[in-house]
Amino acid sequence: MHRVFIEHAPAVGGVLTIAGDEARHAVRVRRLDAGDRLELLDGRGGVSTGVIASVGKDGRTGEWQVVVRVEAARRVEPPTPRVEVWCPAPEGDRARGMIDQLSQVGAASWTPLVSARCGPHAAGARVERLARIAVESAKQCGRAWLLSIEPGGPRPLAEALRADAGRAVIVCDASGGAPMIAGAGAVRVVVGPEGGFAPAELELARASGVQLAGLGPHALRTETAAVVAAVLALNAWTPTQRSNA
Amino acid sequence: MHRVFIEHAPAVGGVLTIAGDEARHAVRVRRLDAGDRLELLDGRGGVSTGVIASVGKDGRTGEWQVVVRVEAARRVEPPTPRVEVWCPAPEGDRARGMIDQLSQVGAASWTPLVSARCGPHAAGARVERLARIAVESAKQCGRAWLLSIEPGGPRPLAEALRADAGRAVIVCDASGGAPMIAGAGAVRVVVGPEGGFAPAELELARASGVQLAGLGPHALRTETAAVVAAVLALNAWTPTQRSNA
Repeated sequence: MHRVFIEHAPAVGGVLTIAGDEARHAVRVRRLDAGDRLELLDGRGGVSTGVIASVGKDGRTGEWQVVVRVEAARRVEPPTPRVEVWCPAPEGDRARGMIDQLSQVGAASWTPLVSARCGPHAAGARVERLARIAVESAKQCGRAWLLSIEPGGPRPLAEALRADAGRAVIVCDASGGAPMIAGAGAVRVVVGPEGGFAPAELELARASGVQLAGLGPHALRTETAAVVAAVLALNAWTPTQRSNA
Repeated sequence: MHRVFIEHAPAVGGVLTIAGDEARHAVRVRRLDAGDRLELLDGRGGVSTGVIASVGKDGRTGEWQVVVRVEAARRVEPPTPRVEVWCPAPEGDRARGMIDQLSQVGAASWTPLVSARCGPHAAGARVERLARIAVESAKQCGRAWLLSIEPGGPRPLAEALRADAGRAVIVCDASGGAPMIAGAGAVRVVVGPEGGFAPAELELARASGVQLAGLGPHALRTETAAVVAAVLALNAWTPTQRSNA
């Protein structure tokens, strides 16, 4: 079913007008018309199903408009555990591909990181435009909760290491093993640049009491490491630990 | 350390001449010179370290040549379990990105699949050129064993479901849960097209006695599903089952 991202869906029985690019795409690319159904996502767990009441052009602007009547609405819980990924921003297409994959696998958020061995790109990364990739990905993969792109620019490792109670922090490094995250409602996975964290950074991580975890025998690109860490935090590490609980 | 892919490394003390693109890249891009060290990978578990004895141009062809003396050699075992990924070939860049990621995470092989809901691209995919991506990825990530791109063109699901004893077959579908692969030396993960497997195909899979496994709540792109399945087969499913053994 075609999915549309909206800020706020009306209650069941209510009517919503979709305009702009979403309307044009629905009509001209997806060829939707009156009577067709679509899904409305608000990115905060609200998923509504609607039926198209009418399709037409705004008399004044000439833009497509799609009028949708909401037929059903449900709330979807976010994936557990809540997995927050921190890593340096890769460049260009690699960053966009990473956000798309983190969204698909179910990470909750991505925060840009700077560390000692990062290139100048990561330190100056402008990540706000990646939020648009997160919206497109949510529609593509049927995600009820948007992947959050944390604003405010790249953060240092020291900030990644500070976490509230109930939030496990895992720094990914070849020296690590399989982490213990039993009972953590949220897991923060911290991935370094392709040259890895500097020795002083790893020392800082160890001194902070966070866990170090290895991601396999090969040198992963940052964006692949981020996705692997998210998948393991969401799927693997959890059931392993649960089976021991 | 810079890595070079070679068909066959000489024994320790022996000398090897690197020519062609590998030599030009080492000299012109990586700026390597006499005395620098590099790593030689044969893609079949052989990893040698060499020191550059000389750098120069072939007097006749004018091409760069790098003469390397082998200082040390070791054998690396392939990742366990052996994870074979079968899925439809995505198009263009997406296929290249998938091969690169499957290589990084440690899958053993990729076999192109056709299934009922595949587009024409997957059925006619020419995958031989992807072998070059596997070589480049092995150098990038330090893989001692090349990801094998299975030749012979796309195979039907029925062939994916036939497997030797000791090889667990897991068909990825939203209807599945967490599979049991305890004791399997090899795991074949079978991923469908973006529309999923057709009902008749899922029936065939169930009748074959293979396991069905879900990959999370979202609709994954084929190449993301392939990577997630490989990561889980290599990391997650295994320790979970081991902890019960």
